[in-house]
Amino acid sequence: MGAKLTSRSADYSKWYNELVVKADLAENSAVRGCMVIKPYGYAIWEKMQNELDRMFKETGHENAYFPLFVPKSLFEAEEKNAEGFAKECAVVTHYRLKTDPDNPGKLIVDPNAKLEEELVVRPTSEAIIWNTYRGWVQSYRDLPIKINQWANVVRWEMRTRLFLRTAEFLWQEGHTAHATKQEAIDETLQMQQIYAEFAESFMAMPVVKGVKSESERFAGADDTYTIEALMQDGKALQAGTSHFLGQNFAKAFDVKYTSKEGKQEHVWSTSWGVSTRLIGGLIMTHSDDYGLVLPPKLAPIQVAIVPIYKGQEQLDAISKKVNEIVSQLKTKGISVKFDDRDTYKPGWKFAEYEMKGVPVRVAIGARDLENGTLEIARRDTLVKQSYQQEEAVEVIEKLLVEIQENLLNKALDYRKEHTTYVDTFEEFKEAIENKGGFVAAHWDGTEETEDQIKEITKATIRCIPLDFEEEEGECVFSGEPSHKRVLFAKAY
Amino acid sequence: MGAKLTSRSADYSKWYNELVVKADLAENSAVRGCMVIKPYGYAIWEKMQNELDRMFKETGHENAYFPLFVPKSLFEAEEKNAEGFAKECAVVTHYRLKTDPDNPGKLIVDPNAKLEEELVVRPTSEAIIWNTYRGWVQSYRDLPIKINQWANVVRWEMRTRLFLRTAEFLWQEGHTAHATKQEAIDETLQMQQIYAEFAESFMAMPVVKGVKSESERFAGADDTYTIEALMQDGKALQAGTSHFLGQNFAKAFDVKYTSKEGKQEHVWSTSWGVSTRLIGGLIMTHSDDYGLVLPPKLAPIQVAIVPIYKGQEQLDAISKKVNEIVSQLKTKGISVKFDDRDTYKPGWKFAEYEMKGVPVRVAIGARDLENGTLEIARRDTLVKQSYQQEEAVEVIEKLLVEIQENLLNKALDYRKEHTTYVDTFEEFKEAIENKGGFVAAHWDGTEETEDQIKEITKATIRCIPLDFEEEEGECVFSGEPSHKRVLFAKAY
Repeated sequence: MGAKLTSRSADYSKWYNELVVKADLAENSAVRGCMVIKPYGYAIWEKMQNELDRMFKETGHENAYFPLFVPKSLFEAEEKNAEGFAKECAVVTHYRLKTDPDNPGKLIVDPNAKLEEELVVRPTSEAIIWNTYRGWVQSYRDLPIKINQWANVVRWEMRTRLFLRTAEFLWQEGHTAHATKQEAIDETLQMQQIYAEFAESFMAMPVVKGVKSESERFAGADDTYTIEALMQDGKALQAGTSHFLGQNFAKAFDVKYTSKEGKQEHVWSTSWGVSTRLIGGLIMTHSDDYGLVLPPKLAPIQVAIVPIYKGQEQLDAISKKVNEIVSQLKTKGISVKFDDRDTYKPGWKFAEYEMKGVPVRVAIGARDLENGTLEIARRDTLVKQSYQQEEAVEVIEKLLVEIQENLLNKALDYRKEHTTYVDTFEEFKEAIENKGGFVAAHWDGTEETEDQIKEITKATIRCIPLDFEEEEGECVFSGEPSHKRVLFAKAY
Repeated sequence: MGAKLTSRSADYSKWYNELVVKADLAENSAVRGCMVIKPYGYAIWEKMQNELDRMFKETGHENAYFPLFVPKSLFEAEEKNAEGFAKECAVVTHYRLKTDPDNPGKLIVDPNAKLEEELVVRPTSEAIIWNTYRGWVQSYRDLPIKINQWANVVRWEMRTRLFLRTAEFLWQEGHTAHATKQEAIDETLQMQQIYAEFAESFMAMPVVKGVKSESERFAGADDTYTIEALMQDGKALQAGTSHFLGQNFAKAFDVKYTSKEGKQEHVWSTSWGVSTRLIGGLIMTHSDDYGLVLPPKLAPIQVAIVPIYKGQEQLDAISKKVNEIVSQLKTKGISVKFDDRDTYKPGWKFAEYEMKGVPVRVAIGARDLENGTLEIARRDTLVKQSYQQEEAVEVIEKLLVEIQENLLNKALDYRKEHTTYVDTFEEFKEAIENKGGFVAAHWDGTEETEDQIKEITKATIRCIPLDFEEEEGECVFSGEPSHKRVLFAKAY
């Protein structure tokens, strides 16, 4: 392992960038704004995918795959959606390269291979999917359609950061079609709930469930439901969204069904997605100045075992004992790595597993072998303790549960400390500027106020929380009457 | 279910196209040459992915993800590879759309958003990956790198067919880097072997393992190893390839390592891939004039149970019995669907599961309930038989194994019958034109002969089989001496 990380307090943003690279999660590529997700980072994504995919299937969704490209004429059919994404579309205009006549060995775009109609690389798939659904839906018997897609999408963002905002990213996008408005709304809320459960139960990342203000809605949605998390620098992260699309796409693409009563109706729809951005949220929620901290449920390696030895004989003796423990841990479904590489020293390995956020690290040396002991270190608190070898499996099993809980509780505490209720704009500015975090304030419901607050403080309305009670008050900015607080924060 | 399929004997190609659509596997999209993979087709792909991914990981490979786009300057670095793919590259030239000033509501490509360097949508990822590996490899301790990627790729093919040849397709591509030539060759062969095992054990599709002639090699490879399957129309399908890339990409991208002895060496490499084309092969190997036939190991639904009833009371009684059987089957890891939809009649359901290739179909009616019986039909032979309800689970379990074996044996028999050894060009033409299948013939090893045979007969050298013995003979075309037979066939 190389030099230490920049500390969070010194430069949070630099800390993050260094951590992503040093923990071997991802790196920038030769393509502007696109990242390479390295095996260790991708293994976290696979764990996320497994859990989410299971949750989607348990609620009756199926996976499918739709084309990467969207013909421009389909892309522009739902106007708001098109307008929202037009500025960041990668566009394919040609389908062939040819040898450069002036530069042997070099290639140029073949001007004779211009497409009749340009193809947009999907920034999201509503257009191509709703154009397809038109052929699938005739009668009420064809509904609901509940499909999810795991895919890559491209949004040509100007300022990019590994995982948090990249020109290409991986995500899942659900696209459902329903006979009634209520069924579509229920689906939208169900998926928001699934995202919230996933965030809290697996990522140990608490989220606020809420609905977006009109200006922060997905382009083409009637309502956008969101889960919002709070990072350690006091900024919010939109971690997943679920959109109630009304009949907007059904109308744009003329998707109708014949009801039981024989009437022709436009169908109702939803879409919802989470992306590799979640990995950015996971990193920023738990990690510290020593490196990544991973919740055990999403850690590719839950336990790393490092032998401390001199010579092959000692290693053999240690390995024998360790292999027993490894096989017991595996039986319990715990993923464990016995790192007996002779190309690296134990201290180097300790630093590596610390940087990579492995929840539990075990060290065992020749002295331990004599005493029947070993040392167990937990990554979240950095506490080390010696145990008897025979209790190791049980201790580790309990520790993994404890670490998962501890990380969630720590994050909950942080959020509680960093959620401020304010009733004046002075308090508002004070909280946003000096303390950070969520600020719960009354708002008059107008876009003008929202815009002005944003301009002055850089804080945006993250959401109108679903569990906030009605409460009479006055807008912190305009003084106009308000019936409910909303959550503001600076955001990623 | 709609009208019947065109029969294979009447029009094989039409039969295939109809089957893919009627079995609900895939359909053409609004994007030329790109398909929509529907949930049932995608579920087969997921089953394939699960098995292959397990096999890759068991042999020490990790997944990662590299960018969709390849800057043109990187794409052209390995000249043979670039030349091989240049003619079918989708190219991104712009990164923004804007409102058409002449056509409100329409969008045009923003001419001010032209990329400085065009981006090729990956047709394969060697270039972007080897450019990345340069940063990962310094010393022998960084080797081997054994990475796989699940991804979409785009090759702008002119004539496309669902699954078999599409402009965009899904695949996995392995890219490995090694310190020695031998290790890279071993890896190449290992992956070919894994593909062959997967094809035979899971797809029940026998394959010939061989090496490609020089003219059929992957662009940029020193050797291409292949698995070749035989379809029911006597044409061969290249089902998977594993390439020994020598030091070609390491040299093009300057990827060197310091050996234990302190010397700087270029690394050795391989790449290997299988794609959604496998689904086309699966369909064509087993299906019949009634629809899809799936091997149980890859069937999304292994058992479909259809109740035959009048009124809710009968359905309730049948459901009670069926639910017992369903839960027992699930305990054994058998995927089962109890189709109690009241919107379709039993006959319609039978036809649907036949079309969709569900290996085992169970029917149970009111009379069965009285007699303690049920009817079990197997999809491969279409044989139906009545059984006692208490033996149902055991019978089904055995049947699934039997069907898997039977499909492989049938395909093996077909291949045996359609592999012809010829010693003259008359025999060669006769076999290719009238019988179809593989033709094993002596070849003089020259590209000229290969080209002329192709021009006259449309047959190509599928591979030089690894298990063919050395044997003295004369080229069927030129009469020149030859030491080994090779396999010819018309191919997809």
